[in-house]
Amino acid sequence: MTEHYLARGFRFAGIHAGVREAVDRADLALIVSETPCRAVGVFTQNQVVAAPVKVCRERLPSGDLRGVVVCAGNANACTGEQGLADARRMSELLAAELSCEARQVLVASTGVIGVPLPMPALENGIPKAVACLADTGRAFESAAKAITTTDSRAKVATRRLDAVAGGPYYLSGMAKGAAMIGPNLATMLAFVCTDAPVAEADLGTILGHAVHSTFNCISVEGHTSTNDTVLLLANGSDTPLTGADLQAFSREVTQACADLARMIAGDAEGAEHLVVIHVEGATADEDARRIAKTIAESALVKTAIHGADPNWGRIISAAGYAGVPFHETELSLWLGDLPLYQQGTPLPFDAATASAYLKQQREVHLRLRVGHGPGICTFYTCDLTAEYIRLNAEYTT
Amino acid sequence: MTEHYLARGFRFAGIHAGVREAVDRADLALIVSETPCRAVGVFTQNQVVAAPVKVCRERLPSGDLRGVVVCAGNANACTGEQGLADARRMSELLAAELSCEARQVLVASTGVIGVPLPMPALENGIPKAVACLADTGRAFESAAKAITTTDSRAKVATRRLDAVAGGPYYLSGMAKGAAMIGPNLATMLAFVCTDAPVAEADLGTILGHAVHSTFNCISVEGHTSTNDTVLLLANGSDTPLTGADLQAFSREVTQACADLARMIAGDAEGAEHLVVIHVEGATADEDARRIAKTIAESALVKTAIHGADPNWGRIISAAGYAGVPFHETELSLWLGDLPLYQQGTPLPFDAATASAYLKQQREVHLRLRVGHGPGICTFYTCDLTAEYIRLNAEYTT
Repeated sequence: MTEHYLARGFRFAGIHAGVREAVDRADLALIVSETPCRAVGVFTQNQVVAAPVKVCRERLPSGDLRGVVVCAGNANACTGEQGLADARRMSELLAAELSCEARQVLVASTGVIGVPLPMPALENGIPKAVACLADTGRAFESAAKAITTTDSRAKVATRRLDAVAGGPYYLSGMAKGAAMIGPNLATMLAFVCTDAPVAEADLGTILGHAVHSTFNCISVEGHTSTNDTVLLLANGSDTPLTGADLQAFSREVTQACADLARMIAGDAEGAEHLVVIHVEGATADEDARRIAKTIAESALVKTAIHGADPNWGRIISAAGYAGVPFHETELSLWLGDLPLYQQGTPLPFDAATASAYLKQQREVHLRLRVGHGPGICTFYTCDLTAEYIRLNAEYTT
Repeated sequence: MTEHYLARGFRFAGIHAGVREAVDRADLALIVSETPCRAVGVFTQNQVVAAPVKVCRERLPSGDLRGVVVCAGNANACTGEQGLADARRMSELLAAELSCEARQVLVASTGVIGVPLPMPALENGIPKAVACLADTGRAFESAAKAITTTDSRAKVATRRLDAVAGGPYYLSGMAKGAAMIGPNLATMLAFVCTDAPVAEADLGTILGHAVHSTFNCISVEGHTSTNDTVLLLANGSDTPLTGADLQAFSREVTQACADLARMIAGDAEGAEHLVVIHVEGATADEDARRIAKTIAESALVKTAIHGADPNWGRIISAAGYAGVPFHETELSLWLGDLPLYQQGTPLPFDAATASAYLKQQREVHLRLRVGHGPGICTFYTCDLTAEYIRLNAEYTT
């Protein structure tokens, strides 16, 4: 088992409660802070919002949060009034065990849309999970595993923050797969716990900043889920970090989120490549992000990479419909270190070398320069494979 | 051979010139008007624009056009200054044969991006194609076949306009596959010829209107090509149509474009279903179009239909990220005639019946009501299959 940096004062659990049918799959996770903690969240921008997201939004930001309850296998989305009552009930069940109020508990779900939650499984499962809570690496990994759906592995990122007043402090993050990557399954979820003392307002700023350059820079197929949830929980009670210490903390949060985001993009369903798209020279970062996202979401770019086909016209033409103005004569493109297109003119290149790069590298880099501005973005996606189609088409309800 | 309504005064040809290697595939098409005709065009909105599109834009609208030369197998896009010179040369070659000026000839190309045109093939091929020009259904079909790439069949739509002054008049349209549907291949092209007498300004309005509700309402994978071109050529010399006659003509143009657009969506690479998405109740037609387009371009919706999986949560959640405001409680969804979701609440439905509908129907209808407004849109797409992946990944350069 890998050594993790575990945020002190947090306990974790992951068990099989029966939210999904498979008996060998954990599907219920808890994260509990021993003491009331500060919590902030960032949620899906979809207008169709799952019930647990609605409950989180009502309760955040919070200054006295105690726990998070997560179920995998059912998204509790498009489930009407019953879904909202069920999400609240999940929080009440954990609150009763922790002897706190329901408003001190958050809820997240991921899985099939439009099917009511199997509440008996949760009524039984939540007390059972509470009995398993522990502040160990094993418990942390169990929780990380229990929130996954069709992810091939649990995704965790933990960090240690040393050179700050009162340190060291620890961050412990976990996440599950991006976008709507599974058969009937929805959502990326991420939870980051820390024992660093950080004021609630600073937490919100820091999480917003971190998500913008990490979880908002990954895509599998561009389908925004109804359930996306990123939570940051901080239970440190020392004097809150300020100045350079706060900035160092912010960098660690961004790094933990970046690590999780890369894992999500690289572990998407059927993916054989992690594709890293750097766009530079745009007028602003947001322009670079729009171009990178459009390339990342092109099925033609993703199938070309899957087929080890250095068909760079697909990349250039995808950039061209991102809705960001540029001059064609200022476009240059590299595949890894290999220049393919320079200031609007194709370069002679060795197709076999380019194809070999795509075949041999698990992680593929594309670099596109679009002008001379300061705007940059690094965006993560994956290739599009027949296995993705199989997983998303051949499993039927 | 099907009977076609052929616009009088036009001749057509389609031959193998060697633009692509396969010796049994026609790859060069001509459309020639005996007399100078009026011509208008609508082109790709991609910022990266192929050389032939640049040439067309310079020359349109035109009052004295004589012909169009089209090559398939090479897009002549991202080819720099050489590409522009080559596109102009193609028009000069046809102009020399027709004894007219190069500005009276338009050019279109479709195929691989970033590779220079094989000009010797075109230098030889264009005179050879001119020798084959004929005003027969067979010549019309040869031209329609020669503009295709990975389309499984030629796409033609012809119409007869009776009850108007001076009529009957005829429309003869041809098109090739939508979006960037082929290995290394790009573009939808469509050419509609008519012998109706219509003023140049009216032609532009009529074509813009027709494209908006037809070719702009189809998608394969949402990848906007660098070469999309739709041309409308009218050579009638009678008194121009006005009033109700002009409106009748406009309806016929829209209908011909709609027929071609449906053929394109239904014949996309690997497609097994034509998917027709009706969105209604939006504030405006444009809002309905944005929602329909977002659903049409969701890989998860398209794989679910491919797998005959009535997983309607994917459709609702796609609507939710289209960027158009609506109230979740006003959403209702039907699959064919089967209601699945009513005013924000899931309905019990027989999954087997829904799945059988998806399995048995080549043409699948989704209907989504998003509110009580007058905005509507009908959008066409196809399912996403492993065959699409195979065609776009496994053929390498």
